[in-house]
Amino acid sequence: MAAFQFCPCAQQVHQPKLLLPPSLAPTRASTKIPMFTPHNNLLSAKFSGKPIPAKFNGSHLKSQIRACANPDSKGSKEEGLRIGIVGFGNFGQFMAKALIRQGHSVLATSRSDYSQYCEKHGIEYYSKMEEMCEQQPDVVLVCTSILSAENILRSIPVHKLKPDTIFADVLSVKQFPKNLFLEILPPEFGIICTHPMFGPESGKNGWSGLPFVYDNVRIAQGTEQEKSCAKFLSIFENEGCRMVEMSCEEHDRHAAGSQFITHTIGRILSHLDLESTPINTRGYETLLQLTENTVSDSFDLYYGLFMYNVNATEQIENLDRAFETVKQKLFGRLHDILRKQIIERVPHQGVPSIRDTTKTPYFLPKREEMRDLSSFAMPPQKEELPQKTEVLGR
Amino acid sequence: MAAFQFCPCAQQVHQPKLLLPPSLAPTRASTKIPMFTPHNNLLSAKFSGKPIPAKFNGSHLKSQIRACANPDSKGSKEEGLRIGIVGFGNFGQFMAKALIRQGHSVLATSRSDYSQYCEKHGIEYYSKMEEMCEQQPDVVLVCTSILSAENILRSIPVHKLKPDTIFADVLSVKQFPKNLFLEILPPEFGIICTHPMFGPESGKNGWSGLPFVYDNVRIAQGTEQEKSCAKFLSIFENEGCRMVEMSCEEHDRHAAGSQFITHTIGRILSHLDLESTPINTRGYETLLQLTENTVSDSFDLYYGLFMYNVNATEQIENLDRAFETVKQKLFGRLHDILRKQIIERVPHQGVPSIRDTTKTPYFLPKREEMRDLSSFAMPPQKEELPQKTEVLGR
Repeated sequence: MAAFQFCPCAQQVHQPKLLLPPSLAPTRASTKIPMFTPHNNLLSAKFSGKPIPAKFNGSHLKSQIRACANPDSKGSKEEGLRIGIVGFGNFGQFMAKALIRQGHSVLATSRSDYSQYCEKHGIEYYSKMEEMCEQQPDVVLVCTSILSAENILRSIPVHKLKPDTIFADVLSVKQFPKNLFLEILPPEFGIICTHPMFGPESGKNGWSGLPFVYDNVRIAQGTEQEKSCAKFLSIFENEGCRMVEMSCEEHDRHAAGSQFITHTIGRILSHLDLESTPINTRGYETLLQLTENTVSDSFDLYYGLFMYNVNATEQIENLDRAFETVKQKLFGRLHDILRKQIIERVPHQGVPSIRDTTKTPYFLPKREEMRDLSSFAMPPQKEELPQKTEVLGR
Repeated sequence: MAAFQFCPCAQQVHQPKLLLPPSLAPTRASTKIPMFTPHNNLLSAKFSGKPIPAKFNGSHLKSQIRACANPDSKGSKEEGLRIGIVGFGNFGQFMAKALIRQGHSVLATSRSDYSQYCEKHGIEYYSKMEEMCEQQPDVVLVCTSILSAENILRSIPVHKLKPDTIFADVLSVKQFPKNLFLEILPPEFGIICTHPMFGPESGKNGWSGLPFVYDNVRIAQGTEQEKSCAKFLSIFENEGCRMVEMSCEEHDRHAAGSQFITHTIGRILSHLDLESTPINTRGYETLLQLTENTVSDSFDLYYGLFMYNVNATEQIENLDRAFETVKQKLFGRLHDILRKQIIERVPHQGVPSIRDTTKTPYFLPKREEMRDLSSFAMPPQKEELPQKTEVLGR
């Protein structure tokens, strides 16, 4: 672990950034140190006496995944992986079903007790993290919530695991677990960051065509680790997922502009207490469905998408501006029309002149109807020349 | 027309409400006049020497619609209606196709020239409103925009039409055309306010199961007008619509909470310039579709939904509050955590203590990465007792 103190990836996760006023924060210029990008550094640095493996060769990996996905083409049945799931809630269970379908062995540990569920589904359950690690699974699959990931990962006794263990995660943000893995895992451990862009609800009728994002952050090429990585990814290929290889950074940019916006709209709508009406349009039906799906996820997930994605705040600001623009367009137009009537005294089509009001007091609408502004919506016609009328109240 | 000056329905459309300060507006209490609801008054008042027909008997109408929809059950083929469409844009043409499919004759007039389109589709086109009225159609179907409806309706030479002409409309708001019809049409004219809750896009694959809202505002019972009304409504029944009889007021309440909200979300999203990503979730795909459908409608339609529905402002306010609530929940939680760090000096899990910052300046992230707040997202753990640290900068 000591060697990692010099890894910029590791350090960049936990700078107490907001605690330092800008004037006090050391700048790159003042330190006169050449800039390393985390990856450059990872590619060249040496840890524990052996070279840190380069980032996986994409095309090589893809052929390996395909070979694993179609074992017949190699003429032999591949042996299943032993996959230890950390965090066995709704999503962990959802993953486990596919892993078992694809012929792998599943181990699980979680803060809550899922021993009965596991017994029923042929899964080895360990109430203590340590006990699961002693079983030395090939892959540790992190299925915790975003918010609890750090505490749980820091509690894993990594020394009990095999030296070539692969850590994978399925969190809905990616830069955060990548940097966390790089910081806390021994350098020999493999790292694959993934995000299945679906869940128990949207994937309940199969995963065919649904996007599965992955980034092979650190896999030792030409080793058993590489084979295990290919086997692991072939699970999702076999289930029909659309495999999308993408860096964690790119994922987070895309996800803030799509998934986070979608969750935000769903959260906003959930506060409107929308109800089905006898006259739902199709568009409204999709909003009702979206709201239902959003609130079926926890607020903690939504908070995680916001808090652990550097691009989310910008998206909230964009949404804010967009709403303001729409309101300004609506109320600005109304204001223009009213101002013309009040200041320039241009009567509106169909609106009785102010002198006429004496004829109509008996028929003034109820208080509720006073809010009908429809008579102000049409711009004054050219034929209607501005005419002087008396000021209000005279 | 003179008789209509005493109809509260008519008067209530065009009160210059906002021009009168509340202190000057006559109240019901001060006028000591018993309150008439528009309908009560319409049911009892007499115009032009003959009784104003009561609101249509719902069950009687429904059996008539069914008889028209299934002419075989009556043993004879019904004669088609002559339907004059006023405003022959996108929606008017969309309506015309169904009218022709159902064996009716279509006439059309519009501000733009659609003579070629009409010639091709077997529709009589009249460039002048007056000429179309001289043809004395059975039904005048108003397919104008909401914003132009009033000007166009006031320009119709109603004296050229048959005395039992039926006026129908398909505007997306209903109280406004109802009151306008009641104000400007002769009392013998029939009035049906309708809203097909679909359009050329959502109804392109047929209208089966799509809601069609109607309110028979004024139809003379036991007359040819009643038969024509049933024939007209059977068009939509035959096309497979789900027929929803509903008052104009109820329609506008439901539509503000559903259709207007949907359009507003679509308009807001259109200002975000959303793009398809390689990792779209299904929820995001529905938002992209919603945005595309919304902007394919004109801003004038959206403005009409806002301006001519008394319930729309309240919905904008609700949406505003809902968005504020979501932002408060996100930023409030963030604030709580930061405040704990800054004021109570509770160090956060994984964040180096302030004294440690001297070790890490070389690895301070790039400006972009400074926005990563992920290290501040976890609430401090109970095990981590608050500890005094030095003030910033010391």
